[in-house]
Amino acid sequence: MTDQKIYRASTTAPVNIAVIKYWGKRDAKLNLPTNSSLSVTLAQNDLRTHTTASCSAKYPAEDVLVLNGAPQDVTGARTQACFRELRALRKDLESKDSSLPPLSSYPLKIVSENNFPTAAGLASSAAGFAALVRAIANLYELPSNPTDLSRIARQGSGSACRSLFGGYAAWEMGTKDDGSDSVAYEVAPASHWPEMRACILVVSAEKKGVSSTTGMQTTVATSTLFAERARDTVPKRMKEMTEAIQKKDFEAFARLTMKDSNSFHATCLDTEPPIFYLNDVSRAAITAVNAINQAAGKIIAAYTFDAGPNAVVYYLQKDEKEVAGAFKALLESKDGWAGERGAAVEVNSTGAANFDEKSAGALQNGISRVILTGVGEGPIKIDEHLIDENGEPVHK
Amino acid sequence: MTDQKIYRASTTAPVNIAVIKYWGKRDAKLNLPTNSSLSVTLAQNDLRTHTTASCSAKYPAEDVLVLNGAPQDVTGARTQACFRELRALRKDLESKDSSLPPLSSYPLKIVSENNFPTAAGLASSAAGFAALVRAIANLYELPSNPTDLSRIARQGSGSACRSLFGGYAAWEMGTKDDGSDSVAYEVAPASHWPEMRACILVVSAEKKGVSSTTGMQTTVATSTLFAERARDTVPKRMKEMTEAIQKKDFEAFARLTMKDSNSFHATCLDTEPPIFYLNDVSRAAITAVNAINQAAGKIIAAYTFDAGPNAVVYYLQKDEKEVAGAFKALLESKDGWAGERGAAVEVNSTGAANFDEKSAGALQNGISRVILTGVGEGPIKIDEHLIDENGEPVHK
Repeated sequence: MTDQKIYRASTTAPVNIAVIKYWGKRDAKLNLPTNSSLSVTLAQNDLRTHTTASCSAKYPAEDVLVLNGAPQDVTGARTQACFRELRALRKDLESKDSSLPPLSSYPLKIVSENNFPTAAGLASSAAGFAALVRAIANLYELPSNPTDLSRIARQGSGSACRSLFGGYAAWEMGTKDDGSDSVAYEVAPASHWPEMRACILVVSAEKKGVSSTTGMQTTVATSTLFAERARDTVPKRMKEMTEAIQKKDFEAFARLTMKDSNSFHATCLDTEPPIFYLNDVSRAAITAVNAINQAAGKIIAAYTFDAGPNAVVYYLQKDEKEVAGAFKALLESKDGWAGERGAAVEVNSTGAANFDEKSAGALQNGISRVILTGVGEGPIKIDEHLIDENGEPVHK
Repeated sequence: MTDQKIYRASTTAPVNIAVIKYWGKRDAKLNLPTNSSLSVTLAQNDLRTHTTASCSAKYPAEDVLVLNGAPQDVTGARTQACFRELRALRKDLESKDSSLPPLSSYPLKIVSENNFPTAAGLASSAAGFAALVRAIANLYELPSNPTDLSRIARQGSGSACRSLFGGYAAWEMGTKDDGSDSVAYEVAPASHWPEMRACILVVSAEKKGVSSTTGMQTTVATSTLFAERARDTVPKRMKEMTEAIQKKDFEAFARLTMKDSNSFHATCLDTEPPIFYLNDVSRAAITAVNAINQAAGKIIAAYTFDAGPNAVVYYLQKDEKEVAGAFKALLESKDGWAGERGAAVEVNSTGAANFDEKSAGALQNGISRVILTGVGEGPIKIDEHLIDENGEPVHK
């Protein structure tokens, strides 16, 4: 008699924004990086992927993945690697305990939803693959810890490995050819330094630039400055950044964050042909952050940019009025201030007055929405399933 | 009886645009660079400084310099260094030949004019100091050759040392503390490769960014990628570029030119705080050049950017229609096509159609004028003086 049961498990997983950037692979198939990286995990109330993994002997033979209501291709090497590795771990358990249902042999059905607009251009693949791996691990009742799972999530999307942790997470590049030591770990939990905030300035949709997968490989192949970054600059900064977080030294954290973002984009520019992710709006955000710091007489805000023009500005809760308040004064008409966090930000017109006219104009014209968030927790197992008892997607 | 004579000598000197960039000093006082550099000298019909140097025992005691009708401060260390060095060479001559008038002891009066709008934001200091040094050397009848004089002009403005040569000129960084081996030399005369053209896309005036003097020292002090550029990247490129010019290999010339411009701007971005000279219009020019090369199926155009947003696009005469013609089709309403060179460019609408809409729009909105020029000769001694027989500035 066939097992008729629908097995389900759900999780949410966070977005992370690196402060020491991942750029460059030493092994494209295994997603092994040319340097270690470090990120802040952002709160899931603001940005998260919710994923339900399910499996059943009753399901049609093909694995299925639905993201935001749209079926996704699961035949890609990256998704396949995650499925394969997780099934192998489950199979191990099954071979040791014959009472376990043979879930590893059942087709998977996975439904996933983001609580933020994909159009925002926020790197959602980190949260997506972290949620996928965590949900299947829950479904399979794997005893694996987050670092074990990070080795798998990394193969889905490099930076996904850091989204298996809350707070402050690092991805150790590792040295082994099989990638077994290229894993993520917790630098500090969110509770260690819970005052960290982030204000994301989303730049109005512009044509997607060079994909990060293609871009980083071109950088590795053509930039003469890149090797220096991977070899000397980042290892030194990883140590300094870890220390800054341990000591809760915001000035050190901020300087390193800004320098490393600039260093990463510098190697993009040194690529042949050059890769530009920063545009004049990004540049205006940098100028505005510099103006905020100058007015404060110390560093209270730090910008960082991923492979796109959106600015992520980190600051501490105590400086909210000086940082987010100044942006609110300038950008109050944009989407994003209505939520609890946004409404709590005090408008700071005096602060906005420090922005030069050109930068202020570029931000007003070029920013489409603002997302207020802060450091947050890692994946959370939840009982709200996106697949019902009959194995059908739940339409919310 | 006092010598009542007004001594005069005049020269013109060219602008040069580097293809291997000078950025960073190892000695700020002597303008000794952290790497060698190489440039193309541009034709003086299009861009030049015209300078008359004069001296007389009758002149008031203070040295005077008038540029484009406006008296300039000559007390700065750079101008003083040029005056001092040139006077010392003259004094040497005088001490060996007592029949020579003691010009080294007479006050200097210098009048200088550019044939291009200063507002264009073209580095005019190179032409300016080359003309100043060359004119005074003529006035003093110094036997010095251009390389000797380049040691002096370098102290006025680093890149001025290359403007003492026509064609293709290099500035050897040298290793000595006193700078005596940090001089310019001719890589090839203009006649070796006379087909080289340049189309300068002048970006509408924007607030002057960080001065190159300040900027390069901040880069040296803070960029972790800069040392790599100075130590390994540039020395290798100097050899390759010299070879490309000797072989008249435009593709190699162009690739190196673009890579080196990007490398220079990458180290600017890696500076703390970051320095941005390229803006969205510059970026559009890069995209347009890439489109031209893609359409041609080979590299027929090369962009380069100095410490500002203006694009200089090098190409060969035979590709004029493909390169300048495409820009003319897009930018025909802008100033700069009226001259002989501009009028000769055939409009190439098919070529312009290869530009993507966004870049085309950015160029149309952001470019204020176009300057068409090409490789040209070094300083030329002329008899047209900007100071009359009575020692008064000539008002043209």
